[in-house]
Amino acid sequence: MRLGLNIGTLGEFELIKRLTAHLPGRADVLLGVGDDCAVLDLQSEALLLTTCDSQVEGVHFTLQTSSPEQIGRKALAINLSDIAAMGGEPRYALISLILPPALPLSVLEGIYAGLRAEATRFNTALVGGNVAGTGQAAQLIIDITLLGTVERGHVLMRSGAQVGDILFVTGTPGDSAAGFYTLLHPDPAYPARAQEVVRQRHRTPNPRVHEGRILSQLGTNVVTAMLDISDGLSGDLEHLCTRSQVGALIEAERLPLSPALRAIAAHTLRDPLDWALHGGEDYELLFTVAPGSEQLVSEAVQSATGTPVTPIGVILPAPDGMKVRYSNQREERLASKSWDHLKASLERPAAEK
Amino acid sequence: MRLGLNIGTLGEFELIKRLTAHLPGRADVLLGVGDDCAVLDLQSEALLLTTCDSQVEGVHFTLQTSSPEQIGRKALAINLSDIAAMGGEPRYALISLILPPALPLSVLEGIYAGLRAEATRFNTALVGGNVAGTGQAAQLIIDITLLGTVERGHVLMRSGAQVGDILFVTGTPGDSAAGFYTLLHPDPAYPARAQEVVRQRHRTPNPRVHEGRILSQLGTNVVTAMLDISDGLSGDLEHLCTRSQVGALIEAERLPLSPALRAIAAHTLRDPLDWALHGGEDYELLFTVAPGSEQLVSEAVQSATGTPVTPIGVILPAPDGMKVRYSNQREERLASKSWDHLKASLERPAAEK
Repeated sequence: MRLGLNIGTLGEFELIKRLTAHLPGRADVLLGVGDDCAVLDLQSEALLLTTCDSQVEGVHFTLQTSSPEQIGRKALAINLSDIAAMGGEPRYALISLILPPALPLSVLEGIYAGLRAEATRFNTALVGGNVAGTGQAAQLIIDITLLGTVERGHVLMRSGAQVGDILFVTGTPGDSAAGFYTLLHPDPAYPARAQEVVRQRHRTPNPRVHEGRILSQLGTNVVTAMLDISDGLSGDLEHLCTRSQVGALIEAERLPLSPALRAIAAHTLRDPLDWALHGGEDYELLFTVAPGSEQLVSEAVQSATGTPVTPIGVILPAPDGMKVRYSNQREERLASKSWDHLKASLERPAAEK
Repeated sequence: MRLGLNIGTLGEFELIKRLTAHLPGRADVLLGVGDDCAVLDLQSEALLLTTCDSQVEGVHFTLQTSSPEQIGRKALAINLSDIAAMGGEPRYALISLILPPALPLSVLEGIYAGLRAEATRFNTALVGGNVAGTGQAAQLIIDITLLGTVERGHVLMRSGAQVGDILFVTGTPGDSAAGFYTLLHPDPAYPARAQEVVRQRHRTPNPRVHEGRILSQLGTNVVTAMLDISDGLSGDLEHLCTRSQVGALIEAERLPLSPALRAIAAHTLRDPLDWALHGGEDYELLFTVAPGSEQLVSEAVQSATGTPVTPIGVILPAPDGMKVRYSNQREERLASKSWDHLKASLERPAAEK
């Protein structure tokens, strides 16, 4: 039984590919595995969106570096971000908890307070769930399935990008990775305000639900493709390019770097672009806009939400692959350093994280 | 942090009650936490049903006593049973896996083969999922969310039973518990065929989806309340009585005991009624029928599916509580020995199970 390939040998994406080959389908499944959400047709006015994601203690969070309430908020937020990435409105959540026996009730109630707060903020009902014990000391796991809806004809998928479209991002990518770095490498000399900002961005990411709704309302002839940045900008851009069968060029100097990110990068003598291009868990939206509609899109989102949206590059033909152009006009191939949560979590003992 | 109440002190039902108090809701949630499924109104012809349930290695299954394919089938079956219990048609499943690093790929592929087979059998699409590692040696966890639909006005809930209604059960309850007993207490002298039957009923329960559909088509004025037996007949009857604010009388001699159950009970010198009344994981349907419709209901289900449905008692006023009447006309209070999976899993080390 213990011989042969084990799952640590494969990465998350390869594993999912193997497991999800030849799955039973139904005619009312408009989009199955492979995007941020599945898209289901229940013969109602809106289409149904479904997604699920789990957070594992020691892999995705620790009780030492986040409060129970922050953990609860983030567990729901990462799922809200998947609904946002399709342009959807979140509606119902099912919460499944796997509990180690010694978990204090106060921790669990803190997590639920966080779940409740985030659900209330995005008008999401908690309609079900399950608790199970592990029978032995082990990690706390929060697994959430989230359902949302989106109007027919307004689903924003990864597959719609066209050559010549402009690539946009919401907010300031890289902050979460910088925050994670400061948690892994504590240093009392970090600039205090910057450290607070980037850690908050890591612990309680802000799902771009309102921004996603506005973008989907603009129509798929204006906003052509979208996904959220969970694995890192380069990794998620690769997902978009693969599904749309295109390439892309990012102009490095256009990347919107936050002052907090720059301050932490300066202090640690690291390149802030590295965090912005390859850091995971931003939960910002990455989307493509038909040429000529850039201003319309920027103004629509910023006027309604205050969230900056920034053009950072352009969609190229597939043979061009992914490239990045620096301020000195030098162009390089952009390697996807996609964060493989599964592989990382299998390779490193929990205590190290 | 480690002081105060911990979750092992509370049972599953008490814990869920505490966590689910004051949850954020929405007007389109017709039924939230507290039944087999939530019932959601998406303004389509049918109502949406949602449920989630997880299976934890060492608590709900072991790789020593079930094959990977059986484990996969059962993980989906227990969720199918929840949709069946509302009279619904299963449609879409999301599969979330938590994987220990050393798990052989062949085991995972076996589990997926089981999931696929059971999904195909009940026309259910696997539309999403997630895999996460645990970062250290730990148990395999399969967490499933299942969505289904049911026609408006045909939802069978736990709360509809009326005094005078007849209590029915599908199939032969107790087999699964007897099968579990033979796995915990192996003995080469068990009657071989009986052992095979009860173990199969434990390892791959048969969700009563078709039976549930027929019952819901008969209308809520004929079939007034329903739920599935996962915690044991007495425990789930108590759930029905609580939600319907009624009592109940079970006539012990009417309980449909399978020949296999009787054979294992005779061999072990145990009372087969104990397994039938209190054994968990039957995944049969327990439902109430308006007086006068008993024959209509029996014939409808048996002619279409071949599954026996048996009247086993009657609904009483709430002050009568739950009672059982034996063949000698002696009546006793029926204690709910509801199987609390959470408490059991927290109290016993996994290795013992």
